[in-house]
Amino acid sequence: MMYPTVLSFILFIAASHLANTVAVAQAPTEPSRVVAARNIPVPDTVSAQMQTLIAQQPAGMSVPKTAEEWKALVAAAAKIDLVRIASLRKQFDVTVESRVIGNVPCFVITPKVIPATNRNRLLVHVHGGAYVFGPGESGTLEAIVMAGFSHMKVISIDYRMPPDFPYPAAMDDAMAVWKEVGKLAHPANIAIFGTSTGGGMTLAMVQRAKEEGLPLPAAIAPGTPWSDLTKTGDSYFTNESVDNALRAYEPLLSAAATLYANGHDLKDRRLSPVYGDFRGFPPTILTTGTRDLFLSNTVRVHRKLRQAGVVAQLEVYEGQSHAQYMPDTTAPESREAFEEIANFFDAHLGR
Amino acid sequence: MMYPTVLSFILFIAASHLANTVAVAQAPTEPSRVVAARNIPVPDTVSAQMQTLIAQQPAGMSVPKTAEEWKALVAAAAKIDLVRIASLRKQFDVTVESRVIGNVPCFVITPKVIPATNRNRLLVHVHGGAYVFGPGESGTLEAIVMAGFSHMKVISIDYRMPPDFPYPAAMDDAMAVWKEVGKLAHPANIAIFGTSTGGGMTLAMVQRAKEEGLPLPAAIAPGTPWSDLTKTGDSYFTNESVDNALRAYEPLLSAAATLYANGHDLKDRRLSPVYGDFRGFPPTILTTGTRDLFLSNTVRVHRKLRQAGVVAQLEVYEGQSHAQYMPDTTAPESREAFEEIANFFDAHLGR
Repeated sequence: MMYPTVLSFILFIAASHLANTVAVAQAPTEPSRVVAARNIPVPDTVSAQMQTLIAQQPAGMSVPKTAEEWKALVAAAAKIDLVRIASLRKQFDVTVESRVIGNVPCFVITPKVIPATNRNRLLVHVHGGAYVFGPGESGTLEAIVMAGFSHMKVISIDYRMPPDFPYPAAMDDAMAVWKEVGKLAHPANIAIFGTSTGGGMTLAMVQRAKEEGLPLPAAIAPGTPWSDLTKTGDSYFTNESVDNALRAYEPLLSAAATLYANGHDLKDRRLSPVYGDFRGFPPTILTTGTRDLFLSNTVRVHRKLRQAGVVAQLEVYEGQSHAQYMPDTTAPESREAFEEIANFFDAHLGR
Repeated sequence: MMYPTVLSFILFIAASHLANTVAVAQAPTEPSRVVAARNIPVPDTVSAQMQTLIAQQPAGMSVPKTAEEWKALVAAAAKIDLVRIASLRKQFDVTVESRVIGNVPCFVITPKVIPATNRNRLLVHVHGGAYVFGPGESGTLEAIVMAGFSHMKVISIDYRMPPDFPYPAAMDDAMAVWKEVGKLAHPANIAIFGTSTGGGMTLAMVQRAKEEGLPLPAAIAPGTPWSDLTKTGDSYFTNESVDNALRAYEPLLSAAATLYANGHDLKDRRLSPVYGDFRGFPPTILTTGTRDLFLSNTVRVHRKLRQAGVVAQLEVYEGQSHAQYMPDTTAPESREAFEEIANFFDAHLGR
């Protein structure tokens, strides 16, 4: 069969793309891509536990309309979180005690066994939850898991949140704690970590510490950080409804961002640290997943760090939606994610 | 307003997900996720040049039915590639000469200026193109760009391909060259790199070198490697039609895989190296993009390498489809991708 011109042109374009050499001007362009409806199977390239998480239907979404509705919602979620936290405390064999540091309520999570090499080390935890969820002890979940995997002491910050305390209360509390923990351990022996909102705050804390001339931590681990509070970044669109944890920016993330910002510009670097300065950052390990709505929030920060010459390690987990290393810590991929971070801290923290 | 039970439950699920603490059993599960049709805008978080590439419509696809049709298609693509290659040779100021190494035709790409630190170093390039595209000099595109960015000499392997020479011809040729280049430079001073099929072959070469007791390179850079020739891995599904370079596994990738395998099991580790053994691998830098159909092909390899304790650096570029660092080397993100790899080689190669 001979090639008539039309078929030949189609095949040529296909071939050029496959060979990755097509010149810029050859293909027709479009301002946005229409992607047809699809059926996405649960991948068989992850563990059985992770398959169960990925198979969960995306959550239905609705937004509280008043401060009271927000509080009721947050309280209901916290109640459930506390049940899981009680079980995690046993599973990871840690003790949890309240302690006020820099006038901010904190929780000190202490593993039963701390090896000699970790005695002078300290981790500071900033919890997630869209700046509204995770008050009090309900915010300690990730801190307990990390204490268990790292065998280091963790201080989890119970920062103030909206609706009562919008920006900058959370950041002011986090910084007040940061200023004080330098008295508990040498900053060269301290790391800061957190997921989602906690990851965004971790980045914003380092930027603010730089601006205020404070010592920096020796390493940080922002997990799938909410680095851009606006719907900016490719995966907010490409992973919409593909991510079954966050599902989409609208309506809940959008509402939470507005509640937190309280009139401040959502693109202000102090709220959206992807727009801040990453020069001089300590070694950073970032964690995300291929289905994560915050994949772009994570890789954009990774590129900024690399452009600033920072040691920055990116871990992307197959099939995972937002922070899906968290809901089932017995999944091999969850262990792997926490152990990567623990090993990273071990490599970069002083003793 | 009070919460009636249904609304309350919906909000709770939403909140639990946001807080990432939802227990495994709480949400209903589904064997696959239906994602509705969507309109995905070109991201404003990438350079103007990258926006132009991302805005291109996915290529129409059609598959040759005979060996003659394959050859005509490959020849047509090669003709266009050679035009761009002529211009890249000037842009990056390199000379290209033919040389037979281990009875295999190769191209030696020499930058005009090679700094003293790079005089004893050598890069080995394995070109991409789905095991069928890029014959002869048309396969040297990436080698020229890398020589330009790294200021190192590059040997690009013109391995045999189907329809005339299916597996294992390509791998046999690549290994024959690998055995000989050790006479041109010390293996501790040599890296292997390649994109897509070239990335898959890079991984398979190291695995085969291990099995055959040959020396290993000092570093490798598989770019978005075709590590699994079957449609296995989450992004084959999640990024279908989101990726505008490859678009989908069917029909062209599937046909090319079958043509190459020639009856061999597509999951054989020698064809799909993600199933091989990654212990003892040299330091590896992997490159992909958030829209890449091969995002999972890349991150699955990254996890395997990390599980094997290998130094493995993952770079994921915002908004990029498969190997989209290649079509416009003037885009800042393209420069960044090649410079990351060049710096990685510089850090890990002996002198």
